[in-house]
Amino acid sequence: MEQTAKDKKSNIILALDFLFEKPENREKLFSKAERILNAVEPYICAVKFNRHLVLPLGTFNGVAKLNEKAHAMGLMAIMDCKVNDIGSTNQTIAEYYYSAGFDALTANPFVGWEEGLKPVFDVAHKLQRGVILLVYMSHKAVWEGYGQTICNAETGEKTLQYVSFAKKALKWNADGVVVGATYPEKIREVHETLGKKIPIYSPGIGAQGGKIESALKAGASYLIVGRTITLSENPAETAKNIRDVANECK
Amino acid sequence: MEQTAKDKKSNIILALDFLFEKPENREKLFSKAERILNAVEPYICAVKFNRHLVLPLGTFNGVAKLNEKAHAMGLMAIMDCKVNDIGSTNQTIAEYYYSAGFDALTANPFVGWEEGLKPVFDVAHKLQRGVILLVYMSHKAVWEGYGQTICNAETGEKTLQYVSFAKKALKWNADGVVVGATYPEKIREVHETLGKKIPIYSPGIGAQGGKIESALKAGASYLIVGRTITLSENPAETAKNIRDVANECK
Repeated sequence: MEQTAKDKKSNIILALDFLFEKPENREKLFSKAERILNAVEPYICAVKFNRHLVLPLGTFNGVAKLNEKAHAMGLMAIMDCKVNDIGSTNQTIAEYYYSAGFDALTANPFVGWEEGLKPVFDVAHKLQRGVILLVYMSHKAVWEGYGQTICNAETGEKTLQYVSFAKKALKWNADGVVVGATYPEKIREVHETLGKKIPIYSPGIGAQGGKIESALKAGASYLIVGRTITLSENPAETAKNIRDVANECK
Repeated sequence: MEQTAKDKKSNIILALDFLFEKPENREKLFSKAERILNAVEPYICAVKFNRHLVLPLGTFNGVAKLNEKAHAMGLMAIMDCKVNDIGSTNQTIAEYYYSAGFDALTANPFVGWEEGLKPVFDVAHKLQRGVILLVYMSHKAVWEGYGQTICNAETGEKTLQYVSFAKKALKWNADGVVVGATYPEKIREVHETLGKKIPIYSPGIGAQGGKIESALKAGASYLIVGRTITLSENPAETAKNIRDVANECK
């Protein structure tokens, strides 16, 4: 990922997410995704998909084709599936997404290790792919779960949930963590825990209110931008501007 | 759901989950799913899908057709997608799954309410579908997240995570909660919190070690059974036996 960002001179990840479309509009949806990817490609280092395209287009007929295009452009492809199921299910999900060409997927550490995320890391290692852990998300209610204080039942020691997740990312040797750009102070705190060992991927720029500069200065390595680009009248120009602002912050 | 279980004289939900298959085996996978559903249908009240079939078969071409068959058999269809994303994404996921005919989906309360699960409940209410919340899962590492103790930052009051989730299920007016059959003492505890207001769906029977009797006696309303039936030499007979044992426990 680091090499791709250097080659592409960009640390911007395009979130290719669209709102619900009726199943009969699937071809239009695929064309729109393809068109935006083509336009924006020079200014990004990776593309991130979510269920917005997997569910209507399909894993192998639809999204795998977009992954092929992304790879041909020298981009990485990330599946933001936030796996949080039992181990055998997580493993099956990971096998399908990696088979469809994804270089990395996101996972929720809340589910734990044994019979939880261990099988995902095992598959990732076997196939030399990545696992990116959610540490602090970008939405309003993030305080309810990620921001809560947990308490060791034996010692009484208190820890913030997201700090505990950042420590798990180190222990489990994750390839990245997600911290919302809407909470730059959390990026700073997580960055202090992780140092240069694990890069921070930061969504929530633009539509959700996150700022490029504050996220990068706090320690984010990659910025994930969706609606600001995909809903823009000129996605290429918007992506170029965001890339330029981000490169100036380095 | 309650009426369907009465009509079908069964509180068994079939988890139609299979391990990873190469994309070229998709048709075989669909036929296998169809065959087992046909065989087992008289002994169950609902079928539960997960990404095991959605990812290879597709939402609308594959799984929606199985939902139609399930509905024609008088069964409910549940999508076990464990949504845990930001609100706009959760909403899009819910819209796709409900459009594909699912009567209910599962969601992880860890993501919180505002810009989290609220949009899912809103869509569900609009379309008169259900939302089932994860309260305590069935796998080994469940203690890491669902079993942890959380601490109110202001009052210092301590609560178990799953008890807090059960209370959220009441507050958010969920249509069901999931508690693993592998932890009958948690079923009992959650049942004490929920009373008869919200039914407990219990996975983990058989392959994962959960027992029919102990789960039902502890307060589970529905048992979710997957591999014990799908990997059985005679799925119909196995499903019938499980149904009979469950009905005797009433």
